[in-house]
Amino acid sequence: MAIRTLVWGENVHENKNEIVRSIYPNGMHACIADALASDPNISVSTTTLQEPDHGITAERLANTDVLVWWGHVAHREVKDEVVELICNAVWSGMGIIFLHSAHFSKPFKRLMGAPCNLTWREAGERERLWVTSRNHPITKGLPDYFELEHEEMYGEPFGVPEPLETVFVSWFQGGEVFRSGLTYKRGAGNVFYFRPGHETYPTYHDKNVQTVLVNAVNWAHNPLARIADPNDAPNVPTPKAPEKIVERGPSLHKPGEAGYR
Amino acid sequence: MAIRTLVWGENVHENKNEIVRSIYPNGMHACIADALASDPNISVSTTTLQEPDHGITAERLANTDVLVWWGHVAHREVKDEVVELICNAVWSGMGIIFLHSAHFSKPFKRLMGAPCNLTWREAGERERLWVTSRNHPITKGLPDYFELEHEEMYGEPFGVPEPLETVFVSWFQGGEVFRSGLTYKRGAGNVFYFRPGHETYPTYHDKNVQTVLVNAVNWAHNPLARIADPNDAPNVPTPKAPEKIVERGPSLHKPGEAGYR
Amino acid sequence: MAIRTLVWGENVHENKNEIVRSIYPNGMHACIADALASDPNISVSTTTLQEPDHGITAERLANTDVLVWWGHVAHREVKDEVVELICNAVWSGMGIIFLHSAHFSKPFKRLMGAPCNLTWREAGERERLWVTSRNHPITKGLPDYFELEHEEMYGEPFGVPEPLETVFVSWFQGGEVFRSGLTYKRGAGNVFYFRPGHETYPTYHDKNVQTVLVNAVNWAHNPLARIADPNDAPNVPTPKAPEKIVERGPSLHKPGEAGYR
Amino acid sequence: MAIRTLVWGENVHENKNEIVRSIYPNGMHACIADALASDPNISVSTTTLQEPDHGITAERLANTDVLVWWGHVAHREVKDEVVELICNAVWSGMGIIFLHSAHFSKPFKRLMGAPCNLTWREAGERERLWVTSRNHPITKGLPDYFELEHEEMYGEPFGVPEPLETVFVSWFQGGEVFRSGLTYKRGAGNVFYFRPGHETYPTYHDKNVQTVLVNAVNWAHNPLARIADPNDAPNVPTPKAPEKIVERGPSLHKPGEAGYR
Repeated sequence: MAIRTLVWGENVHENKNEIVRSIYPNGMHACIADALASDPNISVSTTTLQEPDHGITAERLANTDVLVWWGHVAHREVKDEVVELICNAVWSGMGIIFLHSAHFSKPFKRLMGAPCNLTWREAGERERLWVTSRNHPITKGLPDYFELEHEEMYGEPFGVPEPLETVFVSWFQGGEVFRSGLTYKRGAGNVFYFRPGHETYPTYHDKNVQTVLVNAVNWAHNPLARIADPNDAPNVPTPKAPEKIVERGPSLHKPGEAGYR
Repeated sequence: MAIRTLVWGENVHENKNEIVRSIYPNGMHACIADALASDPNISVSTTTLQEPDHGITAERLANTDVLVWWGHVAHREVKDEVVELICNAVWSGMGIIFLHSAHFSKPFKRLMGAPCNLTWREAGERERLWVTSRNHPITKGLPDYFELEHEEMYGEPFGVPEPLETVFVSWFQGGEVFRSGLTYKRGAGNVFYFRPGHETYPTYHDKNVQTVLVNAVNWAHNPLARIADPNDAPNVPTPKAPEKIVERGPSLHKPGEAGYR
Repeated sequence: MAIRTLVWGENVHENKNEIVRSIYPNGMHACIADALASDPNISVSTTTLQEPDHGITAERLANTDVLVWWGHVAHREVKDEVVELICNAVWSGMGIIFLHSAHFSKPFKRLMGAPCNLTWREAGERERLWVTSRNHPITKGLPDYFELEHEEMYGEPFGVPEPLETVFVSWFQGGEVFRSGLTYKRGAGNVFYFRPGHETYPTYHDKNVQTVLVNAVNWAHNPLARIADPNDAPNVPTPKAPEKIVERGPSLHKPGEAGYR
Repeated sequence: MAIRTLVWGENVHENKNEIVRSIYPNGMHACIADALASDPNISVSTTTLQEPDHGITAERLANTDVLVWWGHVAHREVKDEVVELICNAVWSGMGIIFLHSAHFSKPFKRLMGAPCNLTWREAGERERLWVTSRNHPITKGLPDYFELEHEEMYGEPFGVPEPLETVFVSWFQGGEVFRSGLTYKRGAGNVFYFRPGHETYPTYHDKNVQTVLVNAVNWAHNPLARIADPNDAPNVPTPKAPEKIVERGPSLHKPGEAGYR
């Protein structure tokens, strides 16, 4: 069965800024979705901030294998309830990919538990992405490095937790470096952060970037059945303990009582 | 200079429950603080949920090297603003230690970005903690294992991110296991989770547990100067780039403008 | 294309010891291979210590996607040249699974760079394996725990590097615990250690163990093309630098000279 | 007590090459040792390849808290027995720091279990090291980045296992990047790899590099008592099991027999 992928686009600058519109006339989400659709193993749909509940409901997430997120100027407009829905879906097994300025999006910050800050410069300089984990599935079909002639600079220190694996590190013409591809796991969900994608440059039209996007969706997909309630903390009453034991000592909880949260 | 350590206690069951009061007549926080005070390198104070702002202000955190947190029945009563203050202090370099049922405390869940769920049973069964990282600083002075005759059971799967290091794994009489000592880093702050400490048992009177607490405070202490603003994401304007570059292509931001959040 | 899997068996006790022979009349490797063959996605063959070069040549490894290794009494008899072939194959992308007493095999110790020691007891006691990374691909189809009524005990501290992920932790009747399923990556090769499998018990006939074996082979398989020379350290001469630079200062090496090893 | 630090120098090019001699008239090891001696908490001595057994005996290692290793042209001349002594010392708790071309030294490759390969270029280009783990102890006193005007380039992919933490990433003028500061743990020993230090440039005279060296020795030092035998795999006979059990089923080993290796 194809990997059901939902591309979420903030879709603000595309409608406000001539440059962005000229590069992404149908929105950045549409360009990203088109790139993903080139893989017959991926079935893709899109939604944007402007739709009711930003197009994100519990039901829709239950039918999404991988969510791709791009946002920049309107992070604050994303409702906290939607962020909780997304985190719960990730914990239950949905994959998620955060692109570029989504480092400051609410769901990324929530999943990282960290500031996710960095330095930045918008000078259209050259970026060169180096593979640091050779033959990682996300690098399939890529050379040891590839270049983007014009990109925004993001510089270290990047305020994220140590990742499971560092897949890409970027070189910038202005002298900075950045860990540009990082993998994490939160609950049963795979998380990938990928740096490139400033809206005033044609980054998502780049073939190598598109290859990364396709690979990342395939990598992030967890084919196992979703966990029904990823926050469940069940009591195992004494008679049901795997080994036979006898209850001893004082207790706070009555039999069958739920734990405190 | 001594490590300025603040022990935060929820302090609810001590005042409601005869058993808990009898074991911890001055509150669990007092018992934990006494154990820490045995190390001349640690200077300790305490506070509780009931104090204004739960005894946690930005100024107090600025003067705290390591915060120790025990909570259980009243997690929801901790104010979200206080949680944000704590996370910011951790990101800027404050160490933090979460004890037992603090796995479901707001600051722990916030820093982990994960469900932090588990299974549990209150049967007064035997727990045996095994060292899995020999000669880790947190294991100083400990044998390869130690026992607690009566404890609440916490069982895997434990819904936390993969740690930097797994320091202890627990065996339970009823047949479960649990990763009982886990290290993390969030921003510049060291984070340690330590499992034992159910309030109806005299766990914090145990010598080995006290050794872990002392070691953990020493380990979690980051002596470097606190980061002034751990969320800062400074622009590096083109003239200040480490390498000389010329601005090219279109841009969204005007010179000197702050980034979007 | 099916995952070409080679099961390597030491095949010593099966021929010397009545008990082992009665449980594994065709050898342990045959039992393991049969279990793997139940997955149509796996194409399996076997070899043993007794074959010339232990059945391991560079060519055979080049045509092996995943190698499964069981050894115990004859670790020292494995030739060092064969160990180097195996390590090179792993670094170039071959997956490898080490079973039980293979914790002390030459290739495992070589890949870990660590003592790989543990405590042990042969008492036929009960082992219970707990999943610690819910919905990890290696846990597909498993409940949160499963039991082996008779197993050898392996106890912590286990002298291995911190893994990428801890997938299983074992509980033993005699009071010990052990990190029973650990993932690593070495070069482009995925590595999995799985604890159960003492030769005097019918462990590899167990359905849950067989499920782990099948899952582990699928997980360890890296479908990307093998790296031709995983030890290559190429010089990038100045004219071929990605950015134009001018050579400056003194140098040790003449143009075109290989680096020192 | 001061951290007993031994600086090991290959000491070949210093005696053969005019340029290297002019920069390091007393050898690179002497320059490194002088830098470390600036910290009153460090007590430093040196040895070289040319001394009997390269100056490395079991007794000397037993009295060494941290070993610093620089080698390049003569890796093959280091005796395998000495490499084993070093690994055993690390596993028992000795810290070790590998500098620059020591990425291809025998002890580093042995401890990593990986190819440790990279790309390289000797063009005297500019290197800029960025801190990627702010307020890590190894970064004490450093700005967010520092520069070396002339260095050899080392480029990704660097064939090492994923580290515990990535502390530095380097930018090179010629367009490459490299993970320049990586932490590992092997047994009870802390391991740090630090990239800079090509012998034809005055790198170890640089103040920031010297700061890293001092910090790294302090970080790598494990003050706990050394493990007597880091390879010990003791049997725990049934009567000594932590929980009372009865031996069941068949067994291979006679009581008191050692395990197989």
